[in-house]
Amino acid sequence: MTKTPSDKLYQQYNSTMRKIADIRYSSALLQWDQETYLPPKGAAIRGQQIATLSEIAHQYFTDDTLGALLQELSGRDDLSVQEKKNVSLTWEDYSKQKKFSPAFVRELTETVNKSFHSWLEARKANDFSVFAGDLSKLVTLKKQEAQLLGYQQHPYDALLNDYDKGSTVQLLDGVFNTIRQPLKDILNSIQSRPQVSNEFLHRHYPKAQQWAFGMQVLKDLGYDLEAGRQDVSEHPFTINFNSRDVRVTTRIDENDLGNMVWSCIHETGHALYEQGLPDEAYGLPLGEAASLTIHESQSRLWENHVGRSRAFCEHYFPVLQQYFPEQLKDVTAETFYYGINQVAPSLIRTEADEVTYHFHVMIRYELEKQLLGNTLATNDIPAWWNEHYQQYLGVTVPDDKRGCLQDVHWSHGSFGYFPTYSLGSFYAAQFYEKATQSIKGLDTQIQKGDTTALLQWLRKGVHQYGRQYTSEELSAQVSGEVLNIQHFLRYLLDKYKDIYKF
Amino acid sequence: MTKTPSDKLYQQYNSTMRKIADIRYSSALLQWDQETYLPPKGAAIRGQQIATLSEIAHQYFTDDTLGALLQELSGRDDLSVQEKKNVSLTWEDYSKQKKFSPAFVRELTETVNKSFHSWLEARKANDFSVFAGDLSKLVTLKKQEAQLLGYQQHPYDALLNDYDKGSTVQLLDGVFNTIRQPLKDILNSIQSRPQVSNEFLHRHYPKAQQWAFGMQVLKDLGYDLEAGRQDVSEHPFTINFNSRDVRVTTRIDENDLGNMVWSCIHETGHALYEQGLPDEAYGLPLGEAASLTIHESQSRLWENHVGRSRAFCEHYFPVLQQYFPEQLKDVTAETFYYGINQVAPSLIRTEADEVTYHFHVMIRYELEKQLLGNTLATNDIPAWWNEHYQQYLGVTVPDDKRGCLQDVHWSHGSFGYFPTYSLGSFYAAQFYEKATQSIKGLDTQIQKGDTTALLQWLRKGVHQYGRQYTSEELSAQVSGEVLNIQHFLRYLLDKYKDIYKF
Repeated sequence: MTKTPSDKLYQQYNSTMRKIADIRYSSALLQWDQETYLPPKGAAIRGQQIATLSEIAHQYFTDDTLGALLQELSGRDDLSVQEKKNVSLTWEDYSKQKKFSPAFVRELTETVNKSFHSWLEARKANDFSVFAGDLSKLVTLKKQEAQLLGYQQHPYDALLNDYDKGSTVQLLDGVFNTIRQPLKDILNSIQSRPQVSNEFLHRHYPKAQQWAFGMQVLKDLGYDLEAGRQDVSEHPFTINFNSRDVRVTTRIDENDLGNMVWSCIHETGHALYEQGLPDEAYGLPLGEAASLTIHESQSRLWENHVGRSRAFCEHYFPVLQQYFPEQLKDVTAETFYYGINQVAPSLIRTEADEVTYHFHVMIRYELEKQLLGNTLATNDIPAWWNEHYQQYLGVTVPDDKRGCLQDVHWSHGSFGYFPTYSLGSFYAAQFYEKATQSIKGLDTQIQKGDTTALLQWLRKGVHQYGRQYTSEELSAQVSGEVLNIQHFLRYLLDKYKDIYKF
Repeated sequence: MTKTPSDKLYQQYNSTMRKIADIRYSSALLQWDQETYLPPKGAAIRGQQIATLSEIAHQYFTDDTLGALLQELSGRDDLSVQEKKNVSLTWEDYSKQKKFSPAFVRELTETVNKSFHSWLEARKANDFSVFAGDLSKLVTLKKQEAQLLGYQQHPYDALLNDYDKGSTVQLLDGVFNTIRQPLKDILNSIQSRPQVSNEFLHRHYPKAQQWAFGMQVLKDLGYDLEAGRQDVSEHPFTINFNSRDVRVTTRIDENDLGNMVWSCIHETGHALYEQGLPDEAYGLPLGEAASLTIHESQSRLWENHVGRSRAFCEHYFPVLQQYFPEQLKDVTAETFYYGINQVAPSLIRTEADEVTYHFHVMIRYELEKQLLGNTLATNDIPAWWNEHYQQYLGVTVPDDKRGCLQDVHWSHGSFGYFPTYSLGSFYAAQFYEKATQSIKGLDTQIQKGDTTALLQWLRKGVHQYGRQYTSEELSAQVSGEVLNIQHFLRYLLDKYKDIYKF
């Protein structure tokens, strides 16, 4: 029997993966439409349509033929480094998916569907107990999922690993335990000083001009509008159907300019990453982002290190004044810079500043860890939540809506997601420090509104590799070391000492 | 062995069909997006994604398990009339699809993809020869398709049957041969009289107000905006993803008010039909339209019998004047009514009036019949086309773009589609005549802008049945007789004698 040549086998693998990607990205388009343009009465059937596509994608991906193909390819030596990487990563994903029976997948999908709706109802009723039953069922299923996936030390590890390969409780405990006190110290120093004002952000900013400014920023930062578009949705997000169709959404509050501007820059960061992935690797791991953590490092880098920098304000404040001459006539670039960097403990994670944000994440991380570790019952979440908001941030949670019902993640079954937000921020600081060392005059370029060198640097150092490296490996390659939170702490200290003068 | 109860089998059939519908409608959403919001660089992968979903839907639908289920159900007596109808229609569709091998389906899909692109290029180059090669291949495949499907007399019958069950060359020859001369006579009478002016339609009508007026008409006519939406595309169309999500599109030319208004009403007609289909029959034949001909009867009924009536003008002209006071200040409801009903032979089908429209269709019908019957070669299309435009309409075709390249249909492989446009118009006249007899004071209602009784009548007589009846059966039920073109001719004579005073 003649052995099938490796290139032919690889081709077969490649076209199977492309087909699966077609199904998954079709499902993604249905979701995009659901968040942007779906007429209200279309919602019922839409959920079913998405579920059907997910089920078919799962079937195709867990097909034994693909398994056999992957096993055969794993033994071949005459593949390129990239091809080997694609095969081994797909094998990992495949083995993981194979651990879930169709019945388990269906039960999880159905429970997620139900939970999402009861979460919506609970928010409307402002009452956690409406959500508690479904959430409890979901937690039970996620514990089962952890058992099926397997783990070394903590069941939560199995879930964390899903969003960032190699992420564990041990590692995150280390990170959060190290950063908690220094962060508190910074927050205390800031709170000992007079508050800076951001009142000007809450004047009346008409929708049309906000939209136009957002579009200009998107374009200026290098987002390719021929390979994407912006629309309006209730919560901003980035979604892609291939690297030549990467869409962002925004929301506009006429009494909150900051909300639109920095969420727009944040999503641009995500989108630039997706647009920078190699399009020839469509459907393959090397055509996907390294991890959700690295994804977040890109969005936070653009949002905070670029978008909330003094240099950025120097360039964009005069531009903003052209869009809003009346609203900003008594503001200067300097007071603007202070205002947009106001630090103040608050209730809502998505609106938190760069310092307090991580307390929001730590609370969720601790809570999830305890849920998975069976040391916290679902019913006790509100009390635990409120207690920790008091303890970590000194704020009193007035109700569930502004408390433990604020995030959609749990209703989606996403446990282990939140830590990527903090880790992404920490990597962002580390990467950006390296960028300023590598790109001569980066700050001056940003002052001139020119971020092309920075984008090129990220494309070359991060985007082009797709999933070739884990977060840690990529970090070592880009910045010369694995995660080191000292960069982030130094960045915060430098920035806020200047703003708050402590 | 215990026999599985029929209701259980039917349930199984129903859920399989719903799943297939999920895939097909997902593919439809990808197409809607392609025509409305897709960024240009996303087009390449989008074609592949649509092809993958079509292939999967075909696989699911031609699965032997479904075949066995249908066969088993066909033998069951304890199903309701509707259930039996669903099963027998699905069996028909299934048997048809089974005649195509996966290889044939793939070749057809690929050829259609290629043809569509070469049609676009040919239009750009204004040169039919750029399209000729792919078209020729497509015609060969359609001949093969006709052979696979089988037919009694003419290969074209097999294709016609796809758009309107029971439609044949014999039947259509009869219809068109009967109507050709009377239509020519009407046209001659009109042309012997002074022309009415529609100059006022070509003044400057800003986009925003046109859009607003279109939205008002949509809503007024009973289109449920909670179960659909309107967007902008290059060519207006209606598409549905279930009967609670039926979308229309429009295009706006600032120098052509008529283009937007009557294509908007036309699409509303299609959409009202889809919104009126029984939503509990999602995925089943009884949840689908009876035929493309009946679909067109609905759009033409609203566009022409309602939208181009004197009563409609009496209500809407003053409304239009509120939207465009300057543009319409020297126009009256009566001159408006004349102008929008101007009859004049022209080059472009989609812009043709109610009289000359059918010559455009006849030319295409004759041409397709000859292509399928091997009496016309693809290369000879332009000459044949131009000759017949001269002969039927007395117009000289200046180039291919305004000639045989004007319609997208052939590039999609849609041969046999065009006749449904004429037949739809003829049925529209027949149904509307019946409606005016059945609904007391319908004309007065329309004069008051009230079309609820008409919509209700159509819902009851046409929409609710889905595919339960063929076009002919439905016609007999709604109007008491099968297709009778005398109703249409009488309608034209009454209308144009009044307008052109012949």
